[in-house]
Amino acid sequence: MTAELISVGTEILMGNIVNTNAAYIAEQLVRLGISVYHQETVGDNPERLYETLECATNRADLVIVTGGLGPTQDDLTKETAAKVCGKGMHEDAKAKQMLIDYFDQLGRGWETITDNNWKQVIVPDDSTVFYNYNGTAPGMVIPAENGSKIILLPGPPGELVPMWETSVVPYLSNLNNKVFYSKTVKIDSMGESGVETAILDLIETQTNPTIAPYAKPGEVHLRVIAQADTFAEGEALVMPVVEELKRRFGNCVFTTEEEVTMEEAFVDLLHKYRLTFSTAESCTGGLLAGRLINVAGVSDCYNEGFITYANEAKMKYLGVSAETLEEHGAVSAECAKEMAEGLINATGADVAIVTAGLAGPGGGTATKKPGLVFIGCCVKGHTTVMRYQLTGNREKVRNGAVVRAIAQTRHCILEQFA
Amino acid sequence: MTAELISVGTEILMGNIVNTNAAYIAEQLVRLGISVYHQETVGDNPERLYETLECATNRADLVIVTGGLGPTQDDLTKETAAKVCGKGMHEDAKAKQMLIDYFDQLGRGWETITDNNWKQVIVPDDSTVFYNYNGTAPGMVIPAENGSKIILLPGPPGELVPMWETSVVPYLSNLNNKVFYSKTVKIDSMGESGVETAILDLIETQTNPTIAPYAKPGEVHLRVIAQADTFAEGEALVMPVVEELKRRFGNCVFTTEEEVTMEEAFVDLLHKYRLTFSTAESCTGGLLAGRLINVAGVSDCYNEGFITYANEAKMKYLGVSAETLEEHGAVSAECAKEMAEGLINATGADVAIVTAGLAGPGGGTATKKPGLVFIGCCVKGHTTVMRYQLTGNREKVRNGAVVRAIAQTRHCILEQFA
Repeated sequence: MTAELISVGTEILMGNIVNTNAAYIAEQLVRLGISVYHQETVGDNPERLYETLECATNRADLVIVTGGLGPTQDDLTKETAAKVCGKGMHEDAKAKQMLIDYFDQLGRGWETITDNNWKQVIVPDDSTVFYNYNGTAPGMVIPAENGSKIILLPGPPGELVPMWETSVVPYLSNLNNKVFYSKTVKIDSMGESGVETAILDLIETQTNPTIAPYAKPGEVHLRVIAQADTFAEGEALVMPVVEELKRRFGNCVFTTEEEVTMEEAFVDLLHKYRLTFSTAESCTGGLLAGRLINVAGVSDCYNEGFITYANEAKMKYLGVSAETLEEHGAVSAECAKEMAEGLINATGADVAIVTAGLAGPGGGTATKKPGLVFIGCCVKGHTTVMRYQLTGNREKVRNGAVVRAIAQTRHCILEQFA
Repeated sequence: MTAELISVGTEILMGNIVNTNAAYIAEQLVRLGISVYHQETVGDNPERLYETLECATNRADLVIVTGGLGPTQDDLTKETAAKVCGKGMHEDAKAKQMLIDYFDQLGRGWETITDNNWKQVIVPDDSTVFYNYNGTAPGMVIPAENGSKIILLPGPPGELVPMWETSVVPYLSNLNNKVFYSKTVKIDSMGESGVETAILDLIETQTNPTIAPYAKPGEVHLRVIAQADTFAEGEALVMPVVEELKRRFGNCVFTTEEEVTMEEAFVDLLHKYRLTFSTAESCTGGLLAGRLINVAGVSDCYNEGFITYANEAKMKYLGVSAETLEEHGAVSAECAKEMAEGLINATGADVAIVTAGLAGPGGGTATKKPGLVFIGCCVKGHTTVMRYQLTGNREKVRNGAVVRAIAQTRHCILEQFA
């Protein structure tokens, strides 16, 4: 079975927003064993949308369209798709009641019901409606005359994702027979080309499963995918390769599960060894804690942290000495060490993670260039400070420091406990 | 002049990464007055890439391709584009030297030079090379036989963006004559349909300039664009509309500049009134500070902040009373008020911003559902606490709280000072 993704919206075409939906849906389709060869973006232009939909229904079994279902005048996806499939339209009673309830529940809501909202509850004849429990526009499947199916989904990710999980996955599972089994070996502390060089022999001989490498900031993922008749058969093909990758990359592997993020793997490790942690951030200024606290259940191991952006704050809360700041500066291994050890004293946590760096763009000196970051971690009394010279703009340096702080601390914990 | 964007990479097609480059480039092209009608994504598959490039060079003046220039085996964009344009390949001496220097400078770098890196310095004959000062793969322009041009750019955004600014913009400005003038009126504290309803009369009669609305979490942007022969003429068309929008949306307008973010507008306001601020975060756990500290120059108005995730931390650092926590809970207006006022006492800042909420997914009660967030701000002694019932998953609730915290505090500052 093949699918084609069409993202509708002048805001995507003109680059006002980033198309996260295409990534989400594509990844989901891979897991369901549905092949995607084309992704397209068109604006809120009925003629070009009509052409694109017509072409897509002629070459793919499923045409998955996101966006353009909303209340505003330029939202024309549903009307255009109905025309491509030769369908009339009618009001859906349940969708209408849900729209009323939605606004009721908003409390002091940011929206009030304006007239243009009502067009969202009109659906094409013969369509299967996917009700929206997180927004106002329902999704739907419209059958095309040639047997292809157009699936329309709302653009906002907070609506799309729950609708996908609760409505689209059950719908697609009924249509499809093949199984893809995959695991993703996620690696920190190494670059993409280093990782690939270490597994060139495996990549060159791959057939089923295949190994696909890709890099994220501070991480390299190796996705191992096999096609099979059953999940058990897929698993038997994939798992020996996963074991070989774990053997080659050792402690750098932080998970083999697709859905586990670096921060989740970190919090899992702290739970495993019953450790608490705290953070004190200078250049990352809250991003490190912000990322780690996104893990549900982190409250078992995290109580408090500091953003010690100014030197005074480093002295006041972490006991960094004025001499250290005077002699070595705030962006120094010495300062990072005192921050980490001071953070343990201040909070009583088992593990401390601190960042001190020059995020830029200004502030550089002859010996300290923007992108220079010292990361300190203290694990049960053992302090490790490492120096990183990161590249890129302020945001990239700060996010890069977050990833490296998590990786460095994870390695230090493993060295002491595993 | 028309352009077509092609994003190359199985990792995009399969949804392993999000295509932020397409958004960036599309937005840049709009500013240069170059029309984009198509965006496509293809995998690292030479046949489909060849077809896509051939089709694109036949219908667009510029074909802008990102990705697939890297060192790994599946990076085939350059070879395929050279074939489409009928060009041979040669080693570029400057690119080679830069690659050597790049690895030299990495310090204890995450990469070592592996053999596969050298293919990055091979370029098609007759191409204009864009050297890469932030990574290893250079970009380039390859002239196609029909006069169309294929521009190849590296996939990593930290390399793409600086190359775009320093090399591609000057190159394109030479090719193009028309001018687009645009301003973006950015609005907080209102939803998309409410904003559109308030300007329906303007949208219905628009020709030149046009007004395009789009929504981001907690923000609605109205982009006003005019096409003209000169910048001055474009400005004369756009500015009266911008003034009318400012009149209608008042304090909800936080900027009219495309490149100014909500956090930058906030920090600008603090600079304007010479105010310092501090943060204490529970449910947002560092994300609020993390976002505000991304503004270069924030050190003039931000010294320190707290992540008071546990109740004990709220008492210890902010002086929230045990009675308040016992009687009303941490997620309450009372707690947010004490946090905000306690934060002023602890830090001496002029402005305090605090968050206390239930990010979920667990932890809800009959009266407090996940997504309930109290945001407190204290501006020169005046404390305002507001209650928000946000929807979506943990990440969406936390990011939603950040945006609302910035908006609420900005409004409170304006009410007192403006």
